[in-house]
Formats: sequence, structure tokens, C-alpha cells
Amino acid sequence: MSDLQFSVAGVRTSATQFKAKARQFTLVVDEPEDFGGTNEDANPVEYILAGFAGCTNVIGHIVAKELGFTLNNLHIEVSGTLNPQRLLGTSFDQRAGFKAINLNLTPEADVSEETLAKWLQIVEDRCPVKDNLQNSTPVNVTVAAKTACAL
Amino acid sequence: MSDLQFSVAGVRTSATQFKAKARQFTLVVDEPEDFGGTNEDANPVEYILAGFAGCTNVIGHIVAKELGFTLNNLHIEVSGTLNPQRLLGTSFDQRAGFKAINLNLTPEADVSEETLAKWLQIVEDRCPVKDNLQNSTPVNVTVAAKTACAL
Repeated sequence: MSDLQFSVAGVRTSATQFKAKARQFTLVVDEPEDFGGTNEDANPVEYILAGFAGCTNVIGHIVAKELGFTLNNLHIEVSGTLNPQRLLGTSFDQRAGFKAINLNLTPEADVSEETLAKWLQIVEDRCPVKDNLQNSTPVNVTVAAKTACAL
Repeated sequence: MSDLQFSVAGVRTSATQFKAKARQFTLVVDEPEDFGGTNEDANPVEYILAGFAGCTNVIGHIVAKELGFTLNNLHIEVSGTLNPQRLLGTSFDQRAGFKAINLNLTPEADVSEETLAKWLQIVEDRCPVKDNLQNSTPVNVTVAAKTACAL
């Protein structure tokens, strides 16, 4: 099976707000007022956590089906802790991003603990977002300047 | 400055759809119909890309202000390539997640190329989401079973 490409593009609508188009969908990323934003939607790191939960949900259902049980429900909580000093430029002692991420799954299923443990192990291995958060990924950032004089 | 915690929690609304609450915001994560979903919103990896773009926007404006120039506009495109075989369980030769992520910034600003290069370097260093994608982060996944008999 060949590779799949996913992409998102958009423009800033303020110093804290970005409107991203992903196919036909508009995703508004903002910051709370405490962080200088207009608080019209979730912030960037909340988007990351929501993507991780959504990914775990998809893979959780695929793997449950493979293992022959039904997920009657699935509750997911995910949280992360970061120190804002580096992003604010006030200290460079700590990394910029989450120092750790915790995801807790509460599945409702008529299944043994053994099967559930096996399910968890497979889900962890096959979740794309978990892979990208847990392991290193090449990230290439480029800039194509459009200076004021070129407008 | 002390650490900040961010969290998201929610429930599956189908085998592909997850409704996450981040503070007062509801983020719907789904999959396209081609992937077995109901295509009501962006998919998990598009959420990751949107979060990365939104984060770059916030840090881009903070750093521009520090360097003494105004971003008249900022366009961001971000894309990533993944092979779906591992997530589908058909092959384990490749990683589950994005193999690489490319982010392209098109800032509109009356600024020298030298300043823009410095801006880019600082933005890359201080963007939390770039850090979490590019570098390894401890991810702890736990399961709290709610079996059918306990309902």
C-alpha cells in the first residue's frame, strides 16, 4: 500500500489565531485570553491532545474488531505538562513542548483482562499519533518570504 | 514560572469519531468515508498538522515582536506522509506515524532576509509542537477497564 499525504494550510487571523483548512474543514486554533488570545477555540497543544485521543479511538476500534470483541463505549482522557519559559523566551533550561503525555483509556467491553492488555499493546504500537509524539520525526521548516516591497 | 497542564477528555461517538472537550470547546475528530468514517470533521493526523501550524503562528508573532518587526500576514502550509500498513496491521516494516513533516511559512513583513532567517531559527527552537514532533517525548498509556459486568 502506498504512502498517504495529509496537509493543512491557512492564514493567521490574529497574532494568536490561525484558521487552518483541512480538506473542506476549517480548524480554528486560538489561545485563551490569559495567553493574549481571543479564546475562540482550543489552543495548539489541545489540538495535539485531541488528535492523539481521536487516533487512539480509531485504532482501538480496529484492533478490538481484530481481537473479536465489541467496544460498547470508549472514554479517553489525555493530558500533558509543559513549562512555558522557553516558548516565552525567558529561560532555555527546559524543552519547549510537553515534557510527558499521559493518556488514559476507559473501554466498556465484555472482555478478559488478558485480552484487554493485548489490545492495549497492539493499539499503542499501531497508533500513528502516538508514534509521532513518542518517537523522533524529521521536521523540515522552510520560509518563502513575501516582503512588503514585493506586495 | 511553573509548569502548565493541558488536558482533553471525551468519548467515542462511533468507531471513527471522537468528541473531545478542551475546556469549553468541543473538537470533533473523524475519518473520511474512504477510511470507514462519517467525515464530519478533520481526522486525527490533520489535527496534529493544524496544531503545529497554530503553534508556529503564535510563536512567530511573539518572536517578530521581540525582533522589532510586524507580521502583516502569515500563511502556513504543513504536510506529512505516512504509510497506512502498520495502522491497518497488514505490515510492520514501517513506522505507524508520519515519516516526515514539512512546514512552509510565507510571512509578509518589511524585514531583511537576515532578520527573517534569525526569526525562523528562534521560532523553530521555541515552538512546543515542533519540539514534541521532532523530539522524543515520554508517552504513558493506561487502561482503566469498565467491563460489561460492572455496568
